[in-house]
Amino acid sequence: MSSEESLFRPIFVPNELCEAVSARAWLQAMLDAERALAAASGVDGVAEACDASLYDLAAIAEEARGPGNPVEPLVRALRERSGVADAHRGATSQDILDTAAMLVARTVRSLVVRELEEAASTCARLAGEHRATVMPARTLLQQAVPTTFGLKAAGWLVALLDARRRLLAWAPVAQLGGAGGTLALLGDRGLEVLAAYARELGLAEPELPWHATRSPVHELVVACDGVASACGKIGLDLVLLAQTEVGEVLVPNGVSSTMPHKRNPVAPALSRACAQRVHALAGTFVGEHEHERAAGAWHAEWEALSDVLALTGGAAFHIRRALDGLEVDPGRMRENLRPETVSEAGRDISPAEYLGSAPAFVDRALARFRADLG
Amino acid sequence: MSSEESLFRPIFVPNELCEAVSARAWLQAMLDAERALAAASGVDGVAEACDASLYDLAAIAEEARGPGNPVEPLVRALRERSGVADAHRGATSQDILDTAAMLVARTVRSLVVRELEEAASTCARLAGEHRATVMPARTLLQQAVPTTFGLKAAGWLVALLDARRRLLAWAPVAQLGGAGGTLALLGDRGLEVLAAYARELGLAEPELPWHATRSPVHELVVACDGVASACGKIGLDLVLLAQTEVGEVLVPNGVSSTMPHKRNPVAPALSRACAQRVHALAGTFVGEHEHERAAGAWHAEWEALSDVLALTGGAAFHIRRALDGLEVDPGRMRENLRPETVSEAGRDISPAEYLGSAPAFVDRALARFRADLG
Amino acid sequence: MSSEESLFRPIFVPNELCEAVSARAWLQAMLDAERALAAASGVDGVAEACDASLYDLAAIAEEARGPGNPVEPLVRALRERSGVADAHRGATSQDILDTAAMLVARTVRSLVVRELEEAASTCARLAGEHRATVMPARTLLQQAVPTTFGLKAAGWLVALLDARRRLLAWAPVAQLGGAGGTLALLGDRGLEVLAAYARELGLAEPELPWHATRSPVHELVVACDGVASACGKIGLDLVLLAQTEVGEVLVPNGVSSTMPHKRNPVAPALSRACAQRVHALAGTFVGEHEHERAAGAWHAEWEALSDVLALTGGAAFHIRRALDGLEVDPGRMRENLRPETVSEAGRDISPAEYLGSAPAFVDRALARFRADLG
Amino acid sequence: MSSEESLFRPIFVPNELCEAVSARAWLQAMLDAERALAAASGVDGVAEACDASLYDLAAIAEEARGPGNPVEPLVRALRERSGVADAHRGATSQDILDTAAMLVARTVRSLVVRELEEAASTCARLAGEHRATVMPARTLLQQAVPTTFGLKAAGWLVALLDARRRLLAWAPVAQLGGAGGTLALLGDRGLEVLAAYARELGLAEPELPWHATRSPVHELVVACDGVASACGKIGLDLVLLAQTEVGEVLVPNGVSSTMPHKRNPVAPALSRACAQRVHALAGTFVGEHEHERAAGAWHAEWEALSDVLALTGGAAFHIRRALDGLEVDPGRMRENLRPETVSEAGRDISPAEYLGSAPAFVDRALARFRADLG
Repeated sequence: MSSEESLFRPIFVPNELCEAVSARAWLQAMLDAERALAAASGVDGVAEACDASLYDLAAIAEEARGPGNPVEPLVRALRERSGVADAHRGATSQDILDTAAMLVARTVRSLVVRELEEAASTCARLAGEHRATVMPARTLLQQAVPTTFGLKAAGWLVALLDARRRLLAWAPVAQLGGAGGTLALLGDRGLEVLAAYARELGLAEPELPWHATRSPVHELVVACDGVASACGKIGLDLVLLAQTEVGEVLVPNGVSSTMPHKRNPVAPALSRACAQRVHALAGTFVGEHEHERAAGAWHAEWEALSDVLALTGGAAFHIRRALDGLEVDPGRMRENLRPETVSEAGRDISPAEYLGSAPAFVDRALARFRADLG
Repeated sequence: MSSEESLFRPIFVPNELCEAVSARAWLQAMLDAERALAAASGVDGVAEACDASLYDLAAIAEEARGPGNPVEPLVRALRERSGVADAHRGATSQDILDTAAMLVARTVRSLVVRELEEAASTCARLAGEHRATVMPARTLLQQAVPTTFGLKAAGWLVALLDARRRLLAWAPVAQLGGAGGTLALLGDRGLEVLAAYARELGLAEPELPWHATRSPVHELVVACDGVASACGKIGLDLVLLAQTEVGEVLVPNGVSSTMPHKRNPVAPALSRACAQRVHALAGTFVGEHEHERAAGAWHAEWEALSDVLALTGGAAFHIRRALDGLEVDPGRMRENLRPETVSEAGRDISPAEYLGSAPAFVDRALARFRADLG
Repeated sequence: MSSEESLFRPIFVPNELCEAVSARAWLQAMLDAERALAAASGVDGVAEACDASLYDLAAIAEEARGPGNPVEPLVRALRERSGVADAHRGATSQDILDTAAMLVARTVRSLVVRELEEAASTCARLAGEHRATVMPARTLLQQAVPTTFGLKAAGWLVALLDARRRLLAWAPVAQLGGAGGTLALLGDRGLEVLAAYARELGLAEPELPWHATRSPVHELVVACDGVASACGKIGLDLVLLAQTEVGEVLVPNGVSSTMPHKRNPVAPALSRACAQRVHALAGTFVGEHEHERAAGAWHAEWEALSDVLALTGGAAFHIRRALDGLEVDPGRMRENLRPETVSEAGRDISPAEYLGSAPAFVDRALARFRADLG
Repeated sequence: MSSEESLFRPIFVPNELCEAVSARAWLQAMLDAERALAAASGVDGVAEACDASLYDLAAIAEEARGPGNPVEPLVRALRERSGVADAHRGATSQDILDTAAMLVARTVRSLVVRELEEAASTCARLAGEHRATVMPARTLLQQAVPTTFGLKAAGWLVALLDARRRLLAWAPVAQLGGAGGTLALLGDRGLEVLAAYARELGLAEPELPWHATRSPVHELVVACDGVASACGKIGLDLVLLAQTEVGEVLVPNGVSSTMPHKRNPVAPALSRACAQRVHALAGTFVGEHEHERAAGAWHAEWEALSDVLALTGGAAFHIRRALDGLEVDPGRMRENLRPETVSEAGRDISPAEYLGSAPAFVDRALARFRADLG
């Protein structure tokens, strides 16, 4: 949905991401699938009509009510505009919509990965700069023993790199099976057309149509949920570190207009909100799909997937923003450290003793960062 | 979001409901809260400015990014337009937004209840008409013993009536506490203003501000989830009964353009999709809220609540539609009944024997229907 | 499961609750249902055999594998022991198991309510004692304005009272429908037997069998989830208040053996863990049930419901324990309060000004407490 | 929990799996971690005491209540029994428990993979045998066009192979960080001991301690959930195909004692129940963990993970069983096929035309099967 139309969406999701999951973007992705199908199956005259700006989006949405999906009206409009009755031949609505979902997700992924990489870079910088910045390690929210802010940032860094790796490991897969998953209307050219269709779109070719076995969608959602978890963890640590009584970090922005003394950690809070929403939305995708196409479970995916993608991006965006201008206060960290946290059996111990492998762990995280992003 | 802007939303949610949760509706609800606050606290000159059509929605949404909520820019705009610096005095952003959520939900509820009542009426008619229509009871999807379609419809009826009752039992509650939940800025008039504010809006007065103890929201979501379950159950039974090989009901509409022999049970499938989405979205609301206002868990509610409301309405709308023109085929029911399902120890038993209390149960359900809706 | 057999369960759930959901308790509840059915339908000689200690639990569990539920082997054993072939006549397995679930839940409820009432009493005492104990209100985890610990405790109190009220509002309902929900085997005595059966067990009589429309279970789970939320909220506030750098409360017990300076807030952490588990387990119950008995969704309920009940009890138990010996530190609260939190436009304001309606809100919460528990 | 102690668990989970997640198994895994730590850090005299049968499980569980985890009492008992005060030195409770979780999960995985491979083999056989067995493809539960049972089984096969691949891709990772994640008590030998510890246990070495960034657990749960989805999908198709009115397959066992004509599809129903439970339990793991150790979110994992593992195994076990003796009825499939499903524009079409790429897809699935399991 466009940012003009929602009071809330712009708060959570940056414009570029909103557009990547907009109705217009979905429509174009569906048309890209139709264009690729025509090219793959040797149907001419379709490509020029595969431009979303030629279509009346509202009319298609309206006509989608009857059949219960937007592909049917789109195909009618496409055939009319192109004059090619064989447009869409061989495909079923789900082929086009599932393929479009993959295309939309691929675009969003590149935006999310960019945010993750920037956030990871900032964490790497923080980990390096604060390799020796001593602060309390907290377990069950109680000071336990000393650690370093560098190690904390290194933990965030590895979480982000893991999340990025899993997201990049997800392979968008083309969908093409026809009405029953047999590609019957393509005669003996089915596999050939399938391969060409996937190639046209730069998508992986599936072994089998996956109309009712949803691995490509599940794996995407799970990878997004991993991004949300990584961002949510950082957001949680930031709001805790930024507490008035802790004050070890200061999160940029968030000045309250009514209480000017207050520095609300808005960006981490919004990242947490996005993460929480992704976690819940992921639950939409666990229902099993009946036979060759589900009576409901498939329909439930469309909007929910758009939201998972947008809000995963929102989680990454806000955590990147929060880290960007983060002010770290080593003095406060040191000051907060209770004497008993830094002593053992009544004896004060030296940093060399109590930091143990913290600096070495930071080095490992930085090496991983360079290996992954170098 | 408006139906012009989404490719999917109109498929699931009727226009009236889309509008009831639109950005414009939320904005007006927020302004209604501001107007009530001004009236309750004796601040003049605000009411005329409390009309959503006077404001640039997109600009407010855009300015909401910084503070992380749309109330701050709205209050600035309201003060500017009304020229009353004391507008909003005594309230915090969350007071306005939580109250607006209650107002939006109240409107949606009346739409949902209307759909539920129509669906219940249809079930009551079906239960009465088919009191003696014998069909197989199915357990683990196997024919067990005979039952009647009347009893089946009576079961749906009671489920709808229960869901309606719970939804009506939900009481929308005003929110007013000020920055810390103490109403400090209202001096010694706090409770008096709170009572007047709730009265102005026709909302229940809370015992305490509920900024971080979210019962009013939880109970709403739970009631919506109950509606979704009732509709989802009917949807499930309908798609099973409508199966080609069962054919005991025919669901209206849903003719497939590419396979004209096929009658897709679109409405029940869409109802199930809506129900599944509500179930998952309900998971958004389980996170606990820190101290006097949450750093993320509150923000996560806004869009999710809009979606819960809209999709609960969608679940009810589509099940009402599915029941409206439902064609029941008593001949097919009788024909489907296996001989072994209607026999006991090899002996055929008579309807009087095998229907047991089914007709009496139908009577009880109809009596409940008349009591609830009479 | 018994505490001897799990390494983890005793940490979360007190013995009395473990026993209330044990295999033995379920078996007895199933036998109670059989006994009531025999009494209601005038079958003699069954009652004496309805004692769980007479049965080999492990053997029944083992034999339950084949039919996929424990009622079938139990009925065989019951008929054998009692010598009454008509035992169980008229019922289906689900009648017995669903009724047993209601009986088990009713017992657990009384234990949970007792914990809630004790926790509420402690909150009421804390609210009264600390009516004037000034502390910072915190929004987004930042100090906002002053509040009182009394108001904070009053908020917890109302949350507990709400949760208790909803749990008590849940009505356990008998289940009796026979194989197809028609009570066919009871001839024309169906409704009469149903009424007597419910009366025997002290359960509400359902309008219709609810084999596949699960309101009684849904409403129970939802009420438990409400208890979990209330306890989880208190647990969250306690771990935040107990933080080393905040130190406004000290939670009893939890001395760490390896770090004697550390006071782990074990009880609130365990309460939060229980709450989190209940939230997730609640998701088990959202699936719709097919026709007259589900092929899986019903089976999924059994263990999950036991766990929901036990862990709801655990959440209440640990929060009661945490509140019991809670040490409140008004000095630290005052000390933590930042000057800018207590000033307005550079001017220090007096408690009378800044506490606003906090004391009045406390009075309202205490009045509610007396009304509910008095 | 042991099968003797639960009325329900044996129905869902086979004994071998119950034992693999039993209290005894967890205790032994914890002792394996302690033994490996001692070996890695050169502490002698611990190994002999690392045998679970030497310990009083109930006593340890009982003593775990105070500290809120079972490692503290175990370490006391281990030190007492071994006489080695340095046992456990360098570790924190979470190191031992997290590592134990990985060991328990690794064992369960091998059992689950075995079930998946057997189920996949059966699917491969079915796909091959029924390459030309024509049946209706069903979309929205309506007959659409013809397909083959071979293609249906091939779809299940690929789903199982995907699930197996993901489960095998999960790498169990050692946990060792000490109280604050710095390995401070191991001085400058931290990394060396960590590497040796992981090697001793045959676990992957983590880049950093993952006490509060839970990727290894998340990825395990997600992989289990994928298994549950694959099994749940097959279970759903089987209960639909086995319906009295469809009758295209007959699921082994499940004869109802009270209705001998009835063949309940017990195994697929139980597999679905297990899958549904895993889906819900997966929601336990989405909460973020505070700082260096969570105050609740970690504790919530222990029992939930045991259940996820056991029930994933149950889902696989029951689907393997269901497939094992599955009777396919090609005659009924052909008979069910409606004339209009096999015609196009009023003209009957030949199998060669309407099966399209179905046989080729079967070949691809079988090739994948041989590649994965060959």
